[in-house]
Amino acid sequence: MEIFYAYEADGRFCRLDADESGHCVRVLRHRAGDEINVIDGQGTMFRCRLVDDNPKGAEAEVLEAFPGWGGHPYRLTVACCPTKNNDRFEWFVEKATEVGVDRIVPVIGERSERKVYKTDRALRIALSATKQSLKSRIPQIDEPISVKDFISHSGLDPESLKLIAYCFEGDTKRISIQEALRSYTGRDVTVLIGPEGDFSPEEARLAVEKGYIPVHLGASRLRTETAAVVAATAVYLAFE
Amino acid sequence: MEIFYAYEADGRFCRLDADESGHCVRVLRHRAGDEINVIDGQGTMFRCRLVDDNPKGAEAEVLEAFPGWGGHPYRLTVACCPTKNNDRFEWFVEKATEVGVDRIVPVIGERSERKVYKTDRALRIALSATKQSLKSRIPQIDEPISVKDFISHSGLDPESLKLIAYCFEGDTKRISIQEALRSYTGRDVTVLIGPEGDFSPEEARLAVEKGYIPVHLGASRLRTETAAVVAATAVYLAFE
Repeated sequence: MEIFYAYEADGRFCRLDADESGHCVRVLRHRAGDEINVIDGQGTMFRCRLVDDNPKGAEAEVLEAFPGWGGHPYRLTVACCPTKNNDRFEWFVEKATEVGVDRIVPVIGERSERKVYKTDRALRIALSATKQSLKSRIPQIDEPISVKDFISHSGLDPESLKLIAYCFEGDTKRISIQEALRSYTGRDVTVLIGPEGDFSPEEARLAVEKGYIPVHLGASRLRTETAAVVAATAVYLAFE
Repeated sequence: MEIFYAYEADGRFCRLDADESGHCVRVLRHRAGDEINVIDGQGTMFRCRLVDDNPKGAEAEVLEAFPGWGGHPYRLTVACCPTKNNDRFEWFVEKATEVGVDRIVPVIGERSERKVYKTDRALRIALSATKQSLKSRIPQIDEPISVKDFISHSGLDPESLKLIAYCFEGDTKRISIQEALRSYTGRDVTVLIGPEGDFSPEEARLAVEKGYIPVHLGASRLRTETAAVVAATAVYLAFE
């Protein structure tokens, strides 16, 4: 099943940008009159009829709308420190999108080796993985923010389940991510994953202060990007 | 924590090959008398004292043995069709090793686009991921075998839980992988994951005939390698 992305979709017409139009018209040779499937990236898939097969700006008329197409029954934010090796973080973006994530926040920790992160490639990967896995909502990818700022801002919603994967050597008791998910009856989950050098004790303390629950992801020592995908998978499976 | 791999470990001495010796002596500058941690790749970690700091063949004396170090409470075989793009399969090998897998079998299906698979790179990736994730047992990576041969051979053990992720359009009822794991009281799990073009109906039929339980991995449409990692993660989390 081939999916196109419309940068503009008003419910009656879908407009494809130059990339998508070229793929639709030049590569797949669709012509005016053909039926195509178009997503708006915001949660709706449209069955459409191509009305303008311009390879630089194609337009399609909506025949039928499928709101919530390819959606999932939870809302998941994964805030994860970008890895030193960019490929690893991008791999996480791809896999989390396939599994089902709503928002990805690149957070920069005090111990992060990578202090700068450009979101452009991640946005392209998220779009491609969304189409490939037959979803209609592209995960939001935020501009990078510091771990402390993210915690301070995310700490405001009392309804959501906020989890931090951190060792907390010493007194702090951790439960498994599954246990935390089992005892939660809502749908809004945020998971915070630290950098290769882990969170600083101050970051961890602030998180707990703001309502984050310390969790572990099992006995294995996982890389940052693996931990992020395992956490997303745990949420995905818990709502299955 | 730095881990070295010994190609030979008799319980009293550990011998490192040229690669590991070079890394230990030239790169990390360990000298005779230093304490190092060595795994035998078969489930034991040894605290050792380096007695010969030859950078082409170092030797260490065992001070203490930790059998089962970094192990997990299940035995997992993932039989997965190699992806068209080799990197994707190798990524699965790395991530499954980190999470915890015992045996990886590259299986060639009737609809596999890739009919040949060389295991040498996967073996190196598995070794590296084993050390990186602080485990002492390197997953076994089999030589490729056809899906039908694998099913016929793996079908002999009545104690193990055998799962096949396949759509089974039509009559066959599927349960979620978690449901299958919940109702199983043993520890030996085999998961079979098909190629991009899915199993053939004959392969699927043979699997069911040999005791494989048809499962799904949730509502998301996952790539082959993502399905394999999600399945391994589901097993990992189920035994947590």
